[in-house]
Amino acid sequence: MTRLKHVLLIHGPNLQLLGRRRTEVYGTTTLEGINARAQKQADEAGLRLTAFQANSEGDLVDFIGRHLGEADGAVINPAAYTHTSVALRDALEALEVPVIEVHLSNIGARESFRRHSYIAPIAVGSIAGFGAESYRLALDAMIHILCS
Amino acid sequence: MTRLKHVLLIHGPNLQLLGRRRTEVYGTTTLEGINARAQKQADEAGLRLTAFQANSEGDLVDFIGRHLGEADGAVINPAAYTHTSVALRDALEALEVPVIEVHLSNIGARESFRRHSYIAPIAVGSIAGFGAESYRLALDAMIHILCS
Amino acid sequence: MTRLKHVLLIHGPNLQLLGRRRTEVYGTTTLEGINARAQKQADEAGLRLTAFQANSEGDLVDFIGRHLGEADGAVINPAAYTHTSVALRDALEALEVPVIEVHLSNIGARESFRRHSYIAPIAVGSIAGFGAESYRLALDAMIHILCS
Amino acid sequence: MTRLKHVLLIHGPNLQLLGRRRTEVYGTTTLEGINARAQKQADEAGLRLTAFQANSEGDLVDFIGRHLGEADGAVINPAAYTHTSVALRDALEALEVPVIEVHLSNIGARESFRRHSYIAPIAVGSIAGFGAESYRLALDAMIHILCS
Amino acid sequence: MTRLKHVLLIHGPNLQLLGRRRTEVYGTTTLEGINARAQKQADEAGLRLTAFQANSEGDLVDFIGRHLGEADGAVINPAAYTHTSVALRDALEALEVPVIEVHLSNIGARESFRRHSYIAPIAVGSIAGFGAESYRLALDAMIHILCS
Amino acid sequence: MTRLKHVLLIHGPNLQLLGRRRTEVYGTTTLEGINARAQKQADEAGLRLTAFQANSEGDLVDFIGRHLGEADGAVINPAAYTHTSVALRDALEALEVPVIEVHLSNIGARESFRRHSYIAPIAVGSIAGFGAESYRLALDAMIHILCS
Amino acid sequence: MTRLKHVLLIHGPNLQLLGRRRTEVYGTTTLEGINARAQKQADEAGLRLTAFQANSEGDLVDFIGRHLGEADGAVINPAAYTHTSVALRDALEALEVPVIEVHLSNIGARESFRRHSYIAPIAVGSIAGFGAESYRLALDAMIHILCS
Amino acid sequence: MTRLKHVLLIHGPNLQLLGRRRTEVYGTTTLEGINARAQKQADEAGLRLTAFQANSEGDLVDFIGRHLGEADGAVINPAAYTHTSVALRDALEALEVPVIEVHLSNIGARESFRRHSYIAPIAVGSIAGFGAESYRLALDAMIHILCS
Amino acid sequence: MTRLKHVLLIHGPNLQLLGRRRTEVYGTTTLEGINARAQKQADEAGLRLTAFQANSEGDLVDFIGRHLGEADGAVINPAAYTHTSVALRDALEALEVPVIEVHLSNIGARESFRRHSYIAPIAVGSIAGFGAESYRLALDAMIHILCS
Amino acid sequence: MTRLKHVLLIHGPNLQLLGRRRTEVYGTTTLEGINARAQKQADEAGLRLTAFQANSEGDLVDFIGRHLGEADGAVINPAAYTHTSVALRDALEALEVPVIEVHLSNIGARESFRRHSYIAPIAVGSIAGFGAESYRLALDAMIHILCS
Amino acid sequence: MTRLKHVLLIHGPNLQLLGRRRTEVYGTTTLEGINARAQKQADEAGLRLTAFQANSEGDLVDFIGRHLGEADGAVINPAAYTHTSVALRDALEALEVPVIEVHLSNIGARESFRRHSYIAPIAVGSIAGFGAESYRLALDAMIHILCS
Amino acid sequence: MTRLKHVLLIHGPNLQLLGRRRTEVYGTTTLEGINARAQKQADEAGLRLTAFQANSEGDLVDFIGRHLGEADGAVINPAAYTHTSVALRDALEALEVPVIEVHLSNIGARESFRRHSYIAPIAVGSIAGFGAESYRLALDAMIHILCS
Repeated sequence: MTRLKHVLLIHGPNLQLLGRRRTEVYGTTTLEGINARAQKQADEAGLRLTAFQANSEGDLVDFIGRHLGEADGAVINPAAYTHTSVALRDALEALEVPVIEVHLSNIGARESFRRHSYIAPIAVGSIAGFGAESYRLALDAMIHILCS
Repeated sequence: MTRLKHVLLIHGPNLQLLGRRRTEVYGTTTLEGINARAQKQADEAGLRLTAFQANSEGDLVDFIGRHLGEADGAVINPAAYTHTSVALRDALEALEVPVIEVHLSNIGARESFRRHSYIAPIAVGSIAGFGAESYRLALDAMIHILCS
Repeated sequence: MTRLKHVLLIHGPNLQLLGRRRTEVYGTTTLEGINARAQKQADEAGLRLTAFQANSEGDLVDFIGRHLGEADGAVINPAAYTHTSVALRDALEALEVPVIEVHLSNIGARESFRRHSYIAPIAVGSIAGFGAESYRLALDAMIHILCS
Repeated sequence: MTRLKHVLLIHGPNLQLLGRRRTEVYGTTTLEGINARAQKQADEAGLRLTAFQANSEGDLVDFIGRHLGEADGAVINPAAYTHTSVALRDALEALEVPVIEVHLSNIGARESFRRHSYIAPIAVGSIAGFGAESYRLALDAMIHILCS
Repeated sequence: MTRLKHVLLIHGPNLQLLGRRRTEVYGTTTLEGINARAQKQADEAGLRLTAFQANSEGDLVDFIGRHLGEADGAVINPAAYTHTSVALRDALEALEVPVIEVHLSNIGARESFRRHSYIAPIAVGSIAGFGAESYRLALDAMIHILCS
Repeated sequence: MTRLKHVLLIHGPNLQLLGRRRTEVYGTTTLEGINARAQKQADEAGLRLTAFQANSEGDLVDFIGRHLGEADGAVINPAAYTHTSVALRDALEALEVPVIEVHLSNIGARESFRRHSYIAPIAVGSIAGFGAESYRLALDAMIHILCS
Repeated sequence: MTRLKHVLLIHGPNLQLLGRRRTEVYGTTTLEGINARAQKQADEAGLRLTAFQANSEGDLVDFIGRHLGEADGAVINPAAYTHTSVALRDALEALEVPVIEVHLSNIGARESFRRHSYIAPIAVGSIAGFGAESYRLALDAMIHILCS
Repeated sequence: MTRLKHVLLIHGPNLQLLGRRRTEVYGTTTLEGINARAQKQADEAGLRLTAFQANSEGDLVDFIGRHLGEADGAVINPAAYTHTSVALRDALEALEVPVIEVHLSNIGARESFRRHSYIAPIAVGSIAGFGAESYRLALDAMIHILCS
Repeated sequence: MTRLKHVLLIHGPNLQLLGRRRTEVYGTTTLEGINARAQKQADEAGLRLTAFQANSEGDLVDFIGRHLGEADGAVINPAAYTHTSVALRDALEALEVPVIEVHLSNIGARESFRRHSYIAPIAVGSIAGFGAESYRLALDAMIHILCS
Repeated sequence: MTRLKHVLLIHGPNLQLLGRRRTEVYGTTTLEGINARAQKQADEAGLRLTAFQANSEGDLVDFIGRHLGEADGAVINPAAYTHTSVALRDALEALEVPVIEVHLSNIGARESFRRHSYIAPIAVGSIAGFGAESYRLALDAMIHILCS
Repeated sequence: MTRLKHVLLIHGPNLQLLGRRRTEVYGTTTLEGINARAQKQADEAGLRLTAFQANSEGDLVDFIGRHLGEADGAVINPAAYTHTSVALRDALEALEVPVIEVHLSNIGARESFRRHSYIAPIAVGSIAGFGAESYRLALDAMIHILCS
Repeated sequence: MTRLKHVLLIHGPNLQLLGRRRTEVYGTTTLEGINARAQKQADEAGLRLTAFQANSEGDLVDFIGRHLGEADGAVINPAAYTHTSVALRDALEALEVPVIEVHLSNIGARESFRRHSYIAPIAVGSIAGFGAESYRLALDAMIHILCS
């Protein structure tokens, strides 16, 4: 029996609040809702999915490091760490698997400091601005990369 | 009978060469292939689609201006004009419909001058780095915006 | 019989949409309206006027080049090309006649990239922020320069 | 009887020297000449005009503050304070009336430090480069704003 | 019985060392001393106070997120995270309550990288440079905001 | 009988307008109101207070210079001169007494040019964002510095 | 019979005016003169030459794209597009043949914005400052590259 | 009996992966190997050594703070936090003992953002580019500082 | 009888304090002392000298403007206005006589904002760093310019 | 008999190594080979040629200064000094003869610090990127300038 | 008999003064002392060592060029040339052997212009801040590279 | 008999050409003339003077280093090295005697790269813009420093 391909679904700081703040902007979908939907999408594609959220840069780096040599792809919404974390970039780069950067909002249209991403240069691609849909599209893209 | 929603699919400079240069990077899909696939995707979603490619900034601005008050959304790969065209930005902004920015490559990982987009601040979202798949995902996102 | 002095009235990209978009900002005057009014103003001052609008940087440069050695002044609203076109600047400079830069809105009060003008250093003066009135004032200034 | 609308005509530092220095550039019109002509223009339009010149940033701020709630518009040639005075900007902004920025020379074509204006972002528009004519055009524009 | 208003008193990295290092600069007051004094001040004003210190950006974000919809104000000395943490800013902004930024030293007079604050743009105000007194003044200001 | 300690309370340009403009932002307290309240606060603390407002940078520098060797502290709201006046900084530094910088609004959250302060590096501390309360807190801090 | 090697000779915006403006600087040679001389030089070297001038960025990109896979080298004077056109750079790079950048004037000695070239990084070399001679030298260099 | 001098050996984020990723670059030595070798080096020099690795900025700051007043020197490879952590800098500075900055790779030859170190200004020296040897040399330098 | 050449000796803000603050740096010579010594030096050279000090930028500009067409040279210590006053520069430039910039301290060795001078580009020369001696040397240089 | 025109052929630092390092890039032609070929080219054109190489900025400046008033043109490959030597620029400018800047490689396509040239603003033109051919073309251009 | 590996030990400008200036900072070891100690270290490791000091950039470049193809490694303290010499970088890069950059002081903690190194990008590693010890450690590292 | 105080008079690159180039700007005084005049000035003041000119940065550094511990002051016109030489700065700083920076022209009024001086921060003062007179004034200042 072949091993299922394994995708990490990683959520950065403050995303535990999803669906509870600024719902007029981000919608009422919670992080649990997003993870459940992603799990379903992965199941249908025959992928194993491990979702993880942390507010700590270190916990995110820990999580990624634990899957070194074992994960086949990573979909990550680095949230605020997009703009400030070299450690997260180094952790993702060490995985040596395709990484997709996801954002709920269109970071290219926000404050200038949000236009710089430490993650972009080590990602295969990015999807931003579609709210919870961003995740579905990103997982769709990851499935296409891993399964085609 | 209700009017079909109308999506513009706009391709910027040098994209007429798709599938003919650097095929190891961009794949062998031609622009015609991408348009055909997008047409099929639009048909299935019950959308009207008008595709257009031009190497001239002015022709792109003309095309967009002609659809003022008549288009319901625009999916655009501005290619090189992403980084240099304020005119294209102004034209798209004048449409006052959702605009999605698409890129074949991950522009966040290329030369620094490619990391700045004049289009991003007036787009709802962006998708970059998945080759021809970027278009499918972007149209998927547009369908979600217009039809949900 | 003396030759009438000849003024070029040049409109840059997206100005064909005047009076049809953001009318609460730019008013309901169309480009045709502006041109008609300018024609009347020129007639009264005994000037010949040739109005031209194009969305293409190249078409604008073509138009200007065709009047080399024959035009006596140019009133131009370079719109988006104000900020991006060295070619337009070079074309206007080649005319070796007084150039007046016009803007509908006060570009000094908008996005920072709109505060830089490639045209300003080769113009005799600029008028910005008065909507369609900007054109009347600019033509008034040009008449003063050419006829006094 | 209705109150006449009141326009402030404000001249910044060194403008007391007008007509006495670099006459080959600025012409021989003195500040008194400009004020007289402006007064005539205002009279014809049925406006009240108060002209003021000072070399001191503080005196200019004093003057503006004294007309708070009483002036209906301000035409100002901030001269050197264009580039250095936040106080003048704050004073003008506090007036909450239309402000028009005037310059004798085309500041966009001079030293780079003269291309930045603290006043522009709080003005409705600007006119630069036409010598004494700049004032006539600016007052013309102000009349149009206040009387139309 | 009415619910007491609830103020978070948050201390960033290295502040656990207060009173133990550079006492000639920061004084000999410990963090416990500051918290005790603040508690007394809050009691007198009829406020509930929850103090928290962490060296981890993630722990601070966790703490803030746990009080979403429940806190009425936050007084924070972000210490080093002032200059580097977008995550902390996003967490505080999500609270949608008044935030006051506190610093022991006058950060405007230190190394240039300490002059930039990610927190300032989402705070109502800031107090810096008065040592332990900064906290007293900040809590005083918060009381004024919440109780007047 | 011991000499009372003497605190200068200095107000920069446009602050004479306090309570008369943008009252929804700055409140209806006038400068006289602020000075009266400060006088009361000083009296209670046994301090001598001299308040001064000027729109002119030079008048402010004059005032400060006249108190050289005689003042014991200065609380200053430099307003617009915060960002542009080296002369004011030099004058305050020459006093060689504690200087506290006060702002009604949170300058760290406004236009980028307002985030730079020439005064901060020579002040002991700063308080910003609390409206008229900023003054009360600053004088409170000054009393603490001079009387403890 | 072997196919002749094919060199594109491309002229950017405003070069149609050559020999007609600023003849004291650029000399009286027209573009036709330059092309004729280049044709002669190519004939002698046994090369096929296709010359093209356009003021439109898009027309230049069209022209280059039409010769994809068929041209063996390109000599280009991008004129104003040197400094502003990423599209032209992308088109030339797609050719995957040697590109030589030519300028009539020494752009390194002109306005600072003319010192940046989008074309240089994808060219094999550049020749600037020798007027019409620049073309002869560039074609000479191209002959050397293709024929040695 | 005299107390042994105590050196902290601190490893920043992702270093737990040493010897397991990019072994062609970093070699096959693991972090355990490095610590063991350092322990031996310390034993021979009569120093006490405490090694610590964490991916969390906060955990590193905690660790350092716990040794305040008790450590005699620190050898630290801050990894990604070199470039982003003011908190780590503040923690190390608070120790008031010699700090040596170590890097496996030559950060001066990598991406530009890796050329800036927040740690350097508070370190006595730095050693970079020699892989696992960097640690040996740094400990050698620390021994020289503490024991000579 | 020939008119004596007239030199203006201008002192900027805070210089009225000379000899009263930081005497260990600036010495104990007062401004009166400097003026007296300069008067003597001028007398010996057969020059007329008018000395002036003001803290107000406007007063300095007034003074200079009053001597338009009548002064033959100006020696100025612009103090803080060196770095912030375009008005002073414009006033001095309008004089169209040799201007010498003087500084007591070596401004090239102080804070970076003091290294920029608005005055330098319109001065013939500058002398900085020699305390009161700077004035003597500058007047000496002026005498050499006017009398040789 | 008329004096032959005299051209200096100047080679900057490390060019003595030509033909001995990176021969796959720079070819196997030595500096002696380049000089011999240039001598032949000069002989045919009836020019006198003096070639010189030095690694020292001072020796290059010495050499140039010795030919003041005697040389008629200079062809220089400033190599590394292109980017760092103001002294070389000043020396060449003092010659007051046509200077041509030569580079073996296309410096516009290398590290960003190599894109800035101190020499360009004082040169008539530049030729870069053609290896040893760059010299032949440059001498060809110089002959054209001096002999036509 | 095998050839001994040859290491160049290169000292940049002003290092001839070592042990004679600022001995409280740099210690009393002279350059001769450092060279002697390095010779001993090399002897023990079975390496040939050639030490060289020069104040002239050109002499340093000469020295390095003379050892092209013959040296096996270079340890260099470029001193002031670290920050200004592209020529030295090019010379070292041409050697195509391991280069180690050494500094007596911790240049990362000094003036900002000393934080930029032209040498770092072509070095394998760097050691800074340990005074004369820096040399011993660097030679130790070089021995490890060449002999392991 | 007391040792005479010893002043170094140092001239940087291209100054050997003084009096031979651009005499309309720099006058016809040669370097020999300047040195002779300075010698006379020194003799009168009872100082020993050693003049030196070199085009090589290294020779200048050599010269300065040879006088370590023996010179009492240095007057230097660093010419082009003002802007590029850290080595010269370090050499002068090592002297630990008063250094005066001299310039013939007013470098503050020339190209922007000439406005930065590496020498200024280690000099006591500077004199610029008076041609050969600059030297006389500088030596006068040095005499005042050493003899008063």
